[in-house]
Amino acid sequence: MTNDSKLWGGRFTADTDSFVEEFTASVGFDARLYAQDIAGSIAHANMLSQVGVLTVAERDDIVNALGSIRQEIEDGKFDWSVGLEDVHMNIEARLTQLIGETGKKLHTGRSRNDQVATDIRLYMCAAIDALTAQIDELLATLLNQAEQHKSTVMPGFTHLQTAQPITFGHHLLAWFEMLLRDRERLADCRKRTNHSPLGAAALAGTTFPIDRDQTARELGFAAICENSLDAVSDRDFAIEFCACASMTMLHFSRWCEELVLWSCQQFGFIELSDSYCTGSSIMPQKKNPDVPELIRGKYGRVAGHLFGLMSLMKSQPLAYNKDNQEDKEPLFDSIDTLRDCLTAMTGLLAEMTVNKATMAAAAEAGFATATDLADYLVVKGVAFRDAHECVGQAVAFAIEAKRSLSELTLTELQRFNQAIGEDVFAVLTLSGSVNARDHFGGTAPAQVAAAIARARHKLAEF
Amino acid sequence: MTNDSKLWGGRFTADTDSFVEEFTASVGFDARLYAQDIAGSIAHANMLSQVGVLTVAERDDIVNALGSIRQEIEDGKFDWSVGLEDVHMNIEARLTQLIGETGKKLHTGRSRNDQVATDIRLYMCAAIDALTAQIDELLATLLNQAEQHKSTVMPGFTHLQTAQPITFGHHLLAWFEMLLRDRERLADCRKRTNHSPLGAAALAGTTFPIDRDQTARELGFAAICENSLDAVSDRDFAIEFCACASMTMLHFSRWCEELVLWSCQQFGFIELSDSYCTGSSIMPQKKNPDVPELIRGKYGRVAGHLFGLMSLMKSQPLAYNKDNQEDKEPLFDSIDTLRDCLTAMTGLLAEMTVNKATMAAAAEAGFATATDLADYLVVKGVAFRDAHECVGQAVAFAIEAKRSLSELTLTELQRFNQAIGEDVFAVLTLSGSVNARDHFGGTAPAQVAAAIARARHKLAEF
Amino acid sequence: MTNDSKLWGGRFTADTDSFVEEFTASVGFDARLYAQDIAGSIAHANMLSQVGVLTVAERDDIVNALGSIRQEIEDGKFDWSVGLEDVHMNIEARLTQLIGETGKKLHTGRSRNDQVATDIRLYMCAAIDALTAQIDELLATLLNQAEQHKSTVMPGFTHLQTAQPITFGHHLLAWFEMLLRDRERLADCRKRTNHSPLGAAALAGTTFPIDRDQTARELGFAAICENSLDAVSDRDFAIEFCACASMTMLHFSRWCEELVLWSCQQFGFIELSDSYCTGSSIMPQKKNPDVPELIRGKYGRVAGHLFGLMSLMKSQPLAYNKDNQEDKEPLFDSIDTLRDCLTAMTGLLAEMTVNKATMAAAAEAGFATATDLADYLVVKGVAFRDAHECVGQAVAFAIEAKRSLSELTLTELQRFNQAIGEDVFAVLTLSGSVNARDHFGGTAPAQVAAAIARARHKLAEF
Amino acid sequence: MTNDSKLWGGRFTADTDSFVEEFTASVGFDARLYAQDIAGSIAHANMLSQVGVLTVAERDDIVNALGSIRQEIEDGKFDWSVGLEDVHMNIEARLTQLIGETGKKLHTGRSRNDQVATDIRLYMCAAIDALTAQIDELLATLLNQAEQHKSTVMPGFTHLQTAQPITFGHHLLAWFEMLLRDRERLADCRKRTNHSPLGAAALAGTTFPIDRDQTARELGFAAICENSLDAVSDRDFAIEFCACASMTMLHFSRWCEELVLWSCQQFGFIELSDSYCTGSSIMPQKKNPDVPELIRGKYGRVAGHLFGLMSLMKSQPLAYNKDNQEDKEPLFDSIDTLRDCLTAMTGLLAEMTVNKATMAAAAEAGFATATDLADYLVVKGVAFRDAHECVGQAVAFAIEAKRSLSELTLTELQRFNQAIGEDVFAVLTLSGSVNARDHFGGTAPAQVAAAIARARHKLAEF
Repeated sequence: MTNDSKLWGGRFTADTDSFVEEFTASVGFDARLYAQDIAGSIAHANMLSQVGVLTVAERDDIVNALGSIRQEIEDGKFDWSVGLEDVHMNIEARLTQLIGETGKKLHTGRSRNDQVATDIRLYMCAAIDALTAQIDELLATLLNQAEQHKSTVMPGFTHLQTAQPITFGHHLLAWFEMLLRDRERLADCRKRTNHSPLGAAALAGTTFPIDRDQTARELGFAAICENSLDAVSDRDFAIEFCACASMTMLHFSRWCEELVLWSCQQFGFIELSDSYCTGSSIMPQKKNPDVPELIRGKYGRVAGHLFGLMSLMKSQPLAYNKDNQEDKEPLFDSIDTLRDCLTAMTGLLAEMTVNKATMAAAAEAGFATATDLADYLVVKGVAFRDAHECVGQAVAFAIEAKRSLSELTLTELQRFNQAIGEDVFAVLTLSGSVNARDHFGGTAPAQVAAAIARARHKLAEF
Repeated sequence: MTNDSKLWGGRFTADTDSFVEEFTASVGFDARLYAQDIAGSIAHANMLSQVGVLTVAERDDIVNALGSIRQEIEDGKFDWSVGLEDVHMNIEARLTQLIGETGKKLHTGRSRNDQVATDIRLYMCAAIDALTAQIDELLATLLNQAEQHKSTVMPGFTHLQTAQPITFGHHLLAWFEMLLRDRERLADCRKRTNHSPLGAAALAGTTFPIDRDQTARELGFAAICENSLDAVSDRDFAIEFCACASMTMLHFSRWCEELVLWSCQQFGFIELSDSYCTGSSIMPQKKNPDVPELIRGKYGRVAGHLFGLMSLMKSQPLAYNKDNQEDKEPLFDSIDTLRDCLTAMTGLLAEMTVNKATMAAAAEAGFATATDLADYLVVKGVAFRDAHECVGQAVAFAIEAKRSLSELTLTELQRFNQAIGEDVFAVLTLSGSVNARDHFGGTAPAQVAAAIARARHKLAEF
Repeated sequence: MTNDSKLWGGRFTADTDSFVEEFTASVGFDARLYAQDIAGSIAHANMLSQVGVLTVAERDDIVNALGSIRQEIEDGKFDWSVGLEDVHMNIEARLTQLIGETGKKLHTGRSRNDQVATDIRLYMCAAIDALTAQIDELLATLLNQAEQHKSTVMPGFTHLQTAQPITFGHHLLAWFEMLLRDRERLADCRKRTNHSPLGAAALAGTTFPIDRDQTARELGFAAICENSLDAVSDRDFAIEFCACASMTMLHFSRWCEELVLWSCQQFGFIELSDSYCTGSSIMPQKKNPDVPELIRGKYGRVAGHLFGLMSLMKSQPLAYNKDNQEDKEPLFDSIDTLRDCLTAMTGLLAEMTVNKATMAAAAEAGFATATDLADYLVVKGVAFRDAHECVGQAVAFAIEAKRSLSELTLTELQRFNQAIGEDVFAVLTLSGSVNARDHFGGTAPAQVAAAIARARHKLAEF
Repeated sequence: MTNDSKLWGGRFTADTDSFVEEFTASVGFDARLYAQDIAGSIAHANMLSQVGVLTVAERDDIVNALGSIRQEIEDGKFDWSVGLEDVHMNIEARLTQLIGETGKKLHTGRSRNDQVATDIRLYMCAAIDALTAQIDELLATLLNQAEQHKSTVMPGFTHLQTAQPITFGHHLLAWFEMLLRDRERLADCRKRTNHSPLGAAALAGTTFPIDRDQTARELGFAAICENSLDAVSDRDFAIEFCACASMTMLHFSRWCEELVLWSCQQFGFIELSDSYCTGSSIMPQKKNPDVPELIRGKYGRVAGHLFGLMSLMKSQPLAYNKDNQEDKEPLFDSIDTLRDCLTAMTGLLAEMTVNKATMAAAAEAGFATATDLADYLVVKGVAFRDAHECVGQAVAFAIEAKRSLSELTLTELQRFNQAIGEDVFAVLTLSGSVNARDHFGGTAPAQVAAAIARARHKLAEF
């Protein structure tokens, strides 16, 4: 495209190199902002007419034509041009094509710098709303599974060693808490995103008597960016969103690690649905947990985007620099990845089968109730450190004897501490252990039920 | 140290390898948590006595001895031992040394897993409070400089090319906005940090009838972690803090880039104080802006910590794993770095000298008022796109003629558009340009003054 | 697609969920490996026939049909199916469609695990060769510009403060050195990439009497992966490539920072070609250095990919896991980005105009020859530290007097050191300063010319 | 410290702020370069005397005094001063204190910019040599374990699902290959590090007739940095080293993930030595694999440093900027971390116990020989894809029947394919399966033995 056809070509003598045109164009990825771009232009036109810069007739022409353009785009009939660089110039050029001279008046009192910032912020707010709805669905799925398994006993692990018996419902509620924080972080990010940069123009504001309140209100922004330089140069919201998304993906990497572990032959705690697994091209017996593996892997993708975006902004002087064009692809891909992973995770959890017997058998192994024995001794008057020491010795003895603690005789147990009595065997059972952790946040089924109730209440209030 | 002397040695037959002892010990860096650790232990002992697990006398012995230990530490008389691994075991061992058997009862109903989580969260809340106070001081410094320079004209840049005249005060207020968001993000992070994990014990809660509300209240936590597994495995708050700190450092990298630029011979906009610069070992004339350069460089340090922490948590199954011990050094170093950079930045800005004449001369160059000319034409009835085009041609002509727009004659200007009249020359002045951007968020001195007033009001309300 | 139609469906009862099919498919991005995949299959078929697993007729059928498939793909007539997951299954299914039963024999003795590793390694070797050729072109461009400017004097900067006069050719040769290291690193990376994984099968090798040497030779690999588990799980080469690419992009971020700086009104050292710049939608006078800004920004993109890939592999147990499917998009995008940036950078440098007078004037300012004065005093017998000190005082005096060192009178200069004589003024000139640094690697035009000669020699030997 | 006492204070009027003095000082961490700094100074003094800038007597005074200073430092008697900023100024100031005027001559013809670059490069070369020796020890440890377990059968995993039987020795050799690449990468990095920057002075070289060849030779450098600007601004070697170290830590995160998995109750494949594990403060039965967990966690630390260093250099204009001072801490910590992890990993592997029976039993489960059955059918004339399909169905049947493939009767097996005969049962055994993968790189014990022999040969040649 020659510079004569460019909307900024007046001062240039040589045309843009055709490779450079491709290299610098963003329309390949920013076209997805079309709806926000058009909404922003309509609000701008309405405001310009309100303050007398456009006549009502001009405003109407612009608004109607922008509506037609939106339709053309949604019908796949819009002819995107790389030579016109970006979504903004493509739409403005088409507007002028449709309504002539009046189209050239739309860009009065604004710049692409505030325009693109407005578009992205609008897009982000909508994206956060959609993701939040998906999170709520996943939270509900977690609660349903937790409800079903509030008394299902499994081994709790620390250092991947059997630690103490817990309920599977309790474990799922730990995931619930993580995701709840993610939801809250997204809301906080949205709060800072939902400010209108429109009216900042190139960087300093404009000489036209614009009404930034009106455009902000029409577009649904809660506030106005207070400083025009900051308005066009700020990409905090993109970085903050990617940080939020990375955190969720980090949580998912942890959940998926567990799903993969629990699905392996050695654990056998759960079985994933056939419809969420695939096979091997060579090994006929394989049923692979591809979906959790892939989600786990996608953490890297989103975290990479976060670091890419941060690197992008490092050392940039004010105000807008072209580097910022690189903000969109990582941001959009982060949104899409999070959206897909939320969908996948929700289906995965809804359709997972739990092998209760295997979980319970695993909890029996590994001396999971050793702490209960120590606590029992404390109740009998032994200081905790001493109780810990003598239970440690009992465990060493039992390992040697290849028996569990509850398989030791009373006499054998008493060898380690005389305070042990017949009542010790109730303490060493899984149900005894689990039920005993009966305080706020503990693993006792009663507490898990209470936690589910609190959680359902929260969900209902969203 | 032999396992006999370790507080968990009961079940082990071989002693820890001495290299391993050093390798796995954390006391070298977690000793800084001593005050929080002792406060947490006191709250725990108070609660244990309240619910009848400790007698009042035992509680008093413990609380008094813990007070003495704090004093020993603060007097530099405490003998830290690597063999005792961490701050928790060092203090507990000393407690038992001081008060014998009763000391061994303190760890009843808790684990190092909830203990360390409690310590760090308490430490983080205090750190955030201190950093916030420093931010407020820097915000105030910015406002003072902005006040002084609300009418100081400088060139505003986009793409580091002269764009439009702005005021230096307006530029500083852009920095103010960035830092204000940072402050808000820290507050949001603190909100999520300020939950008590105490009582989660190893991972599942405890069999003792603990009162988690009481310890949370005594320690000043606003809420209680709802799930015991999450309580011991969650490090979101550390990651979120480092994300907040990275964002501030990212902003500082941008500010410092500008300070370095503005200090160079080519710009000459500002002069940094001698007391914030150093010289060269070889070049006698050098006065280097070391402080902003170093702050700019320290962005990498903090961003590296964020990435390190995220990598640390990736794919970790629940609940606590030893990997997490690696959370502290990057977290503490991020806090310290942010603290020092806030101090340095505040001093740097307070003592900077502004070369108004150089700034104004720079704003005169580079056709900074070309947009004003285009806007002028719009007011005269030319469509903006056409106005843009003919001003572009006028600029090309002026570059060729080596003159500024205001140095062209009216006849020359009219060659590009007949609508131009004698009144154009007022539009082409710096003060005309700056004053014309007179709307919310714009660069007009009146708007800058209003923005400062709003900002002072906000600061006053913190 | 139902599992009946899948090439691994035998053991499954439920069909893959359609969302999951999309979510787990890779054909959208791995189709670009088609040529390598077909080459690998042909080599495999040739070898299978050589060792008697396929008949010559079967081999010929397979090889011919694979040739037709390649043609279909290159003609845009191939019907890619998401249900068939990836490039491998798409091609294999089409093969069987074309030649029936024989097509089902191709996968004997291999797995997608070794197949995809083979494809990527072949693709990478070719990509590295293409990028190296581009690097050579950029190196040659740098030498041409250096040749033209081997005597062009500009200020050398440290801390962005004027330090000492240098030649612009010398500066460009610093860039040459960076890029030369990048070239060498790519060659080292290629050396480790160029190993054949084919024959590792799923992870353990195969029961068929395969000849891994033959396939490696036919495909042009220099060596064979020594261990089958490592062969299918290793992605070091992808990470190492992204590290190499990140380093080049890091260098480019530094070069572009300088190009942007030098293009700004305050520096004015160079002018970029109109064909490599774009304008502003609002400010008619703007000519923005978009290309260097965008390249600078693209550093973040590639560095983000590096960190994404590293995060991907963290904590993955052997051997192949589905997570690895996420390796391709960041890798391919890094290759494409580096390719485009090399093209852009070469054009940018070839067409840049240098403002020699502005550079020289800038070198005159800032006391650039103060070190020469100190060195002069050393030759007169003053110890360097003392010389440094008294020149520092002379500079302080000159700043106060608003004069340069060479504008001070001999008497004034002697006030700072009596050893100064009439001959000092030759030392204080730019040409005196530059020519005096006449040793290997120094900035004297003679040394720059020698360095260019050495560099041309190296380039010629590649 | 007042500027009068600073070695560059001549031109300054105000003293450095005391906070700034602390903030900008590097002696706290660069003192570890003292030996390299002194060696560099001695080489510089020798060369200066050779070219006539110093007399022989001056040279001798300097060299002797530098030797005494080294001794003072090693005896812990050197008085490091923060006011003197860094290791270089501390040593130079002490030199002048010791020998007076002559000491002030040492800095003739050099700058701290080339001095520090020289110091770090020397330090890095030595560090790489030491790390390489440690790698060799770990490689040897791997071979010893592999030798012992070349016939020990375990399940090979893909997607953490049982895939095919392999030998444990074969698995360890996969680790060997990873580490071998790491060793090679370090050697490549050393090659690029081992260039002498000395003589580049501040950035442009010096006016003295220095002999860069001589200093490079004396210091053991293999080459001389070709360009003085690049010599002082290049930190590629630090980044490349951290990339190498990150890759090794990434490998270790994978190994450690497996060690942790294999140590858990569910797998039980190995037992780590008591001396490499620690206990729990609350759970008496716990024996935690702290060392592999901690190493896994330390990946994040080193990867964070890599990212930090890259961020540090992004967008830095030439030549030296103060930002670069931030290069040392991440670099030194990466070296130290890698060193400790190599030590820990070597001990961990040397002392690990393997539970052969558990491994073998696990390999029996999970239909590990299903591929062997498919291959068997291919030999019987069935096309691989068809063989895969019918074995898949046989597996589905066996899962339903809760039996393994070898527990099915011949009649049952023939239901899926008539080609199956009595000889199938040999194919379905673990030893049959493992021994059948008998080609270069395969898991057959004979191949593992051959691979060990090749590996020993390589190690012997290092």
